[in-house]
Amino acid sequence: MTGPLSLMPGGVATPLGFRAAGVSAGIKASGNPDLMLLVADAPVQVAAVFTTNKVIAAPVIVSKEHLVRSGGTARAIVVNSGCANACTGDAGLRDAREMAAETARLVGCPVEQVLVSSTGVIGVNLPMDKVRGGLPAAFKALGADQGPAAARAIMTTDLWPKESAARISIGGRDALIGGMAKGAGMIEPMMATMLGFVTTDAAVPKALLDRALREAVDRTFNAITVDGDSSTNDCVLLLASGASAVVVDEAGYGAFVEGLTAVCRELALAIVRGGEGATKLVAVNVTGAATSAEARKAAKVIANSLLVKTAIHGGDPNWGRLICAAGRAGVAFDASRAAVTMGPLVLFKDGQPHDELAPAAAEYLKGADLSIGVDLGSGAASSTVWTCDLSAEYVRINADYRT
Amino acid sequence: MTGPLSLMPGGVATPLGFRAAGVSAGIKASGNPDLMLLVADAPVQVAAVFTTNKVIAAPVIVSKEHLVRSGGTARAIVVNSGCANACTGDAGLRDAREMAAETARLVGCPVEQVLVSSTGVIGVNLPMDKVRGGLPAAFKALGADQGPAAARAIMTTDLWPKESAARISIGGRDALIGGMAKGAGMIEPMMATMLGFVTTDAAVPKALLDRALREAVDRTFNAITVDGDSSTNDCVLLLASGASAVVVDEAGYGAFVEGLTAVCRELALAIVRGGEGATKLVAVNVTGAATSAEARKAAKVIANSLLVKTAIHGGDPNWGRLICAAGRAGVAFDASRAAVTMGPLVLFKDGQPHDELAPAAAEYLKGADLSIGVDLGSGAASSTVWTCDLSAEYVRINADYRT
Repeated sequence: MTGPLSLMPGGVATPLGFRAAGVSAGIKASGNPDLMLLVADAPVQVAAVFTTNKVIAAPVIVSKEHLVRSGGTARAIVVNSGCANACTGDAGLRDAREMAAETARLVGCPVEQVLVSSTGVIGVNLPMDKVRGGLPAAFKALGADQGPAAARAIMTTDLWPKESAARISIGGRDALIGGMAKGAGMIEPMMATMLGFVTTDAAVPKALLDRALREAVDRTFNAITVDGDSSTNDCVLLLASGASAVVVDEAGYGAFVEGLTAVCRELALAIVRGGEGATKLVAVNVTGAATSAEARKAAKVIANSLLVKTAIHGGDPNWGRLICAAGRAGVAFDASRAAVTMGPLVLFKDGQPHDELAPAAAEYLKGADLSIGVDLGSGAASSTVWTCDLSAEYVRINADYRT
Repeated sequence: MTGPLSLMPGGVATPLGFRAAGVSAGIKASGNPDLMLLVADAPVQVAAVFTTNKVIAAPVIVSKEHLVRSGGTARAIVVNSGCANACTGDAGLRDAREMAAETARLVGCPVEQVLVSSTGVIGVNLPMDKVRGGLPAAFKALGADQGPAAARAIMTTDLWPKESAARISIGGRDALIGGMAKGAGMIEPMMATMLGFVTTDAAVPKALLDRALREAVDRTFNAITVDGDSSTNDCVLLLASGASAVVVDEAGYGAFVEGLTAVCRELALAIVRGGEGATKLVAVNVTGAATSAEARKAAKVIANSLLVKTAIHGGDPNWGRLICAAGRAGVAFDASRAAVTMGPLVLFKDGQPHDELAPAAAEYLKGADLSIGVDLGSGAASSTVWTCDLSAEYVRINADYRT
């Protein structure tokens, strides 16, 4: 017996059994919060997906090691923003290990039960004095009401913190799922995204937890793109405390993965909405594909086309750019059966333009929440990818990130 | 016996046996030149490469048909700018055929000896009254000194016309190669670029002409990118008149392909220099790759990374973005042996940053002609791809192309 899913305000500390904190340790020159702690009351089950970039940041290496040694359990996650600790050689690995060890000492758990993440500039070593100095303050600030502070402390160029939570019902009992994530650039996750943390107070066996995370991530974090670049530090961690006494078995799996997907989707769409320089959220729906993989591939090519993204930014219903991007995606495509839609408007179908609808389409594109469709005319498979428009502000942000 | 190659001023009408013209037919609302004719004194041998986009514009379809019917010979090329005649259905095909037929009538040749190209907005039908009205004026304006006018008439968002010419020497005799091309957006050619036209007065057997064009294009037009989008209208046409009485055989092939490559490279680099919003030309040199194909693939991923292109625009020596892009390119990559260089400066090598060189690198990036190197640490193959920086001006141009 499973009940309806309801989204609710909340974040990683909303599910029972978790406390969080976010403090300013001085890693960022701005003085903004830059150190996050998430601590479970007892060891919890963990599912994780990490970046598939061949350059893997030190904290990702250490977290993977720890998950192996702990048998996929954890007590705490420690995250800093302002420095990615990637391409930092042996010193970077030492720093990530020390960050975990200091956290383990404060929490009172084995070091392998601490997972580490970092986000920020690549190729700069962690200022360990700042990290060491900030950790006791973060530990002292831990609270079940500190989810919002935690979400702020993992931000880099994000304009706002990204949190989401949902209540699910399994076997007549409620369980909670909460999460937080950060963007806002180097976003085209491959099997994972730039730092997402999700908790639940359901008890979920390892195999189901892994399966649920992969399924949810594939439909959410892995279906978004801001700029087509995949980070060296990507990870999504899902922690299950079991504190709600709700046990997820095969019968309850559907409700759990639905709730998890809803939370991940809210976070993923928030990342796109808050993408660097973004002013519009665009759902790219590819239909009529020969296979799901081809649908996803075409949707990604369209979603990453600078010409598509700038046309949407300018409110120009330039459907030719969508057709052109689909045509170079390397998938089955039949121009004579293809179609392009913007919202409810069919601008191109069966080889014929319908430019009489261009004024209506231009009006539609003034919205902030858009839906663009391309039918490849080659089959029955489909896929949705979410992207944002490309603005001059994006260039300003990224031409001047470090200086 | 072959002599040295020398680049010289000139364009498509520089080699003997060709006349060109460029006029304003009123296709562009601006009144700028928009109709180009290139006519050979007699039928000439043609080599051609066309877009590999699955959406193929009407003029490309018609030109391919004509080359089959004429056995790879031609008398004339007619090109309009201001309208791509792509995604225009049966009417588009009729228009392209009529454009060729009108040209054939004026030139006095079979219709299959006329090749057609169009460039501009996708999905808009050609204003045939303007094309019909402009063709006689273009025919009347034909001259061996009208190469510059021809190069102007094929421009869209290009800031300047792109011409190049070279003198080669084979068997003690001189022959000329001349060309023109246009950019400036939707540029990541796949086996061809956005309209390139090259002539020579050497006599080149069909097989050698084809081989030379493919070889030159692979090293020039197919090694550039402005925005990663491949157009529906791409083509490079190479015409050999034989009017110089120089005959290219296997012995002379090396000199011919060297001259052809030099002309194509000048045009290709001019397209990148004149890329939409571009302020810098960037050679991306990938070395240490497992295979040439992987080297090219990694170079293209780096050259298309928005984060790399914006960092270069901002003069930020953010080598981490280069490493990150190489790491997600899907090629063999060993971070512990990899290296990143900017000009003569080694910013990352053997897993260690050299950020003490960052100020010197920032100074280097102030130049307009840059060279960036990434060694993948995985083999001995290499590839160079040319790209430009990404500026806020690019967004302004493309957010507002049609309106």
